[in-house]
Amino acid sequence: MLTTLNDLTESCITTETIRSGGMLTLKVDQVALPSGRTGQREYVVHPGASVVVALLPNGHVLLEKQFRYPLHQVFIELPAGKIDASEPPLLTAQRELLEETGYSAKEWVALGRQHPCIGYSDEVIHMYLAVGLMAGQHKRDEDEALELFDLSLSDCLGLIKSGQISDGKTMLALFMAERYLAEHPHLLAAG
Amino acid sequence: MLTTLNDLTESCITTETIRSGGMLTLKVDQVALPSGRTGQREYVVHPGASVVVALLPNGHVLLEKQFRYPLHQVFIELPAGKIDASEPPLLTAQRELLEETGYSAKEWVALGRQHPCIGYSDEVIHMYLAVGLMAGQHKRDEDEALELFDLSLSDCLGLIKSGQISDGKTMLALFMAERYLAEHPHLLAAG
Repeated sequence: MLTTLNDLTESCITTETIRSGGMLTLKVDQVALPSGRTGQREYVVHPGASVVVALLPNGHVLLEKQFRYPLHQVFIELPAGKIDASEPPLLTAQRELLEETGYSAKEWVALGRQHPCIGYSDEVIHMYLAVGLMAGQHKRDEDEALELFDLSLSDCLGLIKSGQISDGKTMLALFMAERYLAEHPHLLAAG
Repeated sequence: MLTTLNDLTESCITTETIRSGGMLTLKVDQVALPSGRTGQREYVVHPGASVVVALLPNGHVLLEKQFRYPLHQVFIELPAGKIDASEPPLLTAQRELLEETGYSAKEWVALGRQHPCIGYSDEVIHMYLAVGLMAGQHKRDEDEALELFDLSLSDCLGLIKSGQISDGKTMLALFMAERYLAEHPHLLAAG
């Protein structure tokens, strides 16, 4: 049931890079469709990202408020960031948590991965739970404007229900963390 | 706490459309940053989408297997699709369910919305639960290659845990549906 089916596969005929060198790389490929005809696929090439559910000693989740230009809106988000060249995703998670918040963590749990935009991007997001937090000095640069705050996990889930948390990667990592913590309740005490 | 903070806001100085007319519209804006400096923002302009958790009479969830070119992989997905010009998102959900699967539904519940890619896309995905399904004739075109199947909600959650369901919009809509159904169990019986 879950095997790759040959008769669904689209194969590349030609590929063209429309834009690169900035933040986004955009490609347009001509492809052979299963029907026998040809089609065009446009997509963003992305290095991948990691996102962190970091539990403070009081069990609260570390959150950020950040302005996101494509939607002209401040979002409530978990710490997250793009994978640097050849960086293992766990290191990305640890680096971004430290850079954005100043925290490091004693224990890291992989919560799985998700593909946020399979229609037009190859991005994968690796999700982590971080417990045993130790405060330190953040390394945000002057142009990285964000505000830190924290909320209990149940308050986070309440903000998802009310629509005040609508960032997909944040919603999904919180749900994955909730499920993991329900099976590993000792980690909440260790937060 | 949840208000938009002026000192996080980035404002547009100039905007340029790099590509349009195909599947993706890509814009590059020069923006004024909160720091006083200027920066560049590249993003995809997207019409938005709707995704459907459709419950069959046996309580199973309707799923699709579809090849997604950006990741060169077959994904397990919920029925979903892009919003047509000036189409209300509920109509998109109803139209896509009918076109892709042939099913219509007696009852529709809005489960909320999510933004899958706030860093580089303005896409919003509206999530719906559909119950009271009635089978009919799908309207897939010849180039729309997908396979339908169905699984219990608990089997879907198992495939998320094992990583076999990794499409973000599908994971998130299943979690939202699970939470909604836990509070409205009569809908499972009505599926």
